[in-house]
Amino acid sequence: MSTFFAPSLQNNQTFYQLSEEESKHCIRVLRMQVGAVLELVNGRGLQAQALLQDAHPKRCMLEITSIVQHAPTPNVHIAMAPTKNMDRIEWFLEKATELGLTRLTLLACEHNERKQVNLDRLEKIAIAAMKQSKRYYLPQLEPLQRFSDFIAAQPEGYFGHCAEGPKIGMAELIKNKPFLIGPEGDFSEQEIALALNAGYQAVEMSAFRLRTETAALLATTALL
Amino acid sequence: MSTFFAPSLQNNQTFYQLSEEESKHCIRVLRMQVGAVLELVNGRGLQAQALLQDAHPKRCMLEITSIVQHAPTPNVHIAMAPTKNMDRIEWFLEKATELGLTRLTLLACEHNERKQVNLDRLEKIAIAAMKQSKRYYLPQLEPLQRFSDFIAAQPEGYFGHCAEGPKIGMAELIKNKPFLIGPEGDFSEQEIALALNAGYQAVEMSAFRLRTETAALLATTALL
Repeated sequence: MSTFFAPSLQNNQTFYQLSEEESKHCIRVLRMQVGAVLELVNGRGLQAQALLQDAHPKRCMLEITSIVQHAPTPNVHIAMAPTKNMDRIEWFLEKATELGLTRLTLLACEHNERKQVNLDRLEKIAIAAMKQSKRYYLPQLEPLQRFSDFIAAQPEGYFGHCAEGPKIGMAELIKNKPFLIGPEGDFSEQEIALALNAGYQAVEMSAFRLRTETAALLATTALL
Repeated sequence: MSTFFAPSLQNNQTFYQLSEEESKHCIRVLRMQVGAVLELVNGRGLQAQALLQDAHPKRCMLEITSIVQHAPTPNVHIAMAPTKNMDRIEWFLEKATELGLTRLTLLACEHNERKQVNLDRLEKIAIAAMKQSKRYYLPQLEPLQRFSDFIAAQPEGYFGHCAEGPKIGMAELIKNKPFLIGPEGDFSEQEIALALNAGYQAVEMSAFRLRTETAALLATTALL
């Protein structure tokens, strides 16, 4: 059954009109016809079954036939500096969404080469990966925020860096804490000191040198 | 320091001539000059430091100044059906090589959509990822082989499949055994029965539906 994203779907609804984009996909691409059965997810745990009532190519109207609220999945929160190359962060987001990422914060760090990120594009990737992987929750995507602001708001968690210093092993992680991943040029000395002082623990992620997005994906798997 | 691949480098060598491709990269791209210091790795644990003696754009000649043999890293063996889209298996190989993959076997399964794989291209990706991640071992890449032949040769390990049946959790894996990942259409019933009869254990990899390459990467992180 084909799945469509219905962000404003609520528990008590009997009809739902798809967005212009999802309507086009339903009618022009999948060529669905009146009476077809399809699935809706709202990205916040609601899953509905619906019948296609009006096959309008821009405003598909559906009748909801059943609806279920799924329980949330465990918190998996990655906060990372965006990679220089957008492909790499998009790839990370697709894979991490499949695996169970629930929240992604983008960090503005001292050594970031990229200063801007198109969140709309990232959201589309997360929606596609959510549907593909049969999840009911869309990861929360948070725009670039200053490293120091993030640390002040979330004064506990893990981070990986390449400098010397005491580090814990990947097997010692306790789930449900954010994991911070730095940019290609690593966190700065000041950022490392700030995180350690706030109560973050540095983690020895690998014997090898990992790219930003590889480190972020490894952190994701460790928090599942 | 820039790293170059020197597959025929041996422990007792005092001079080394780079391949045409690596020579071009050294002289035409990086514009290195006589006297430059560079690093060589042979993909089997040898790491050497060398001086550029003859900056020939096709046949760079180097003088080895020091050489070290690194110990092998733990076995991480993934056997997977190639994805329909080559980008996805190439991406997997890049990431898994960074993380510590030591052996990749390609499986010819009943439901494979792809029947051929260009191993030369995969090897180039593995070499680049090995250099990037500062590893000294190149993962062993094995061409497509029949699922039943693989099972006969390696009668113990893990595999993921989407059908019903008893499965162990990801936390129960013992390292140093191969992990088998099926094609987009999953392993066939016959393949599942064959693996179980041989002594393979089925693994519940995720609550969500993972793409082939995502499952293979998750299996890699579990075997590190």
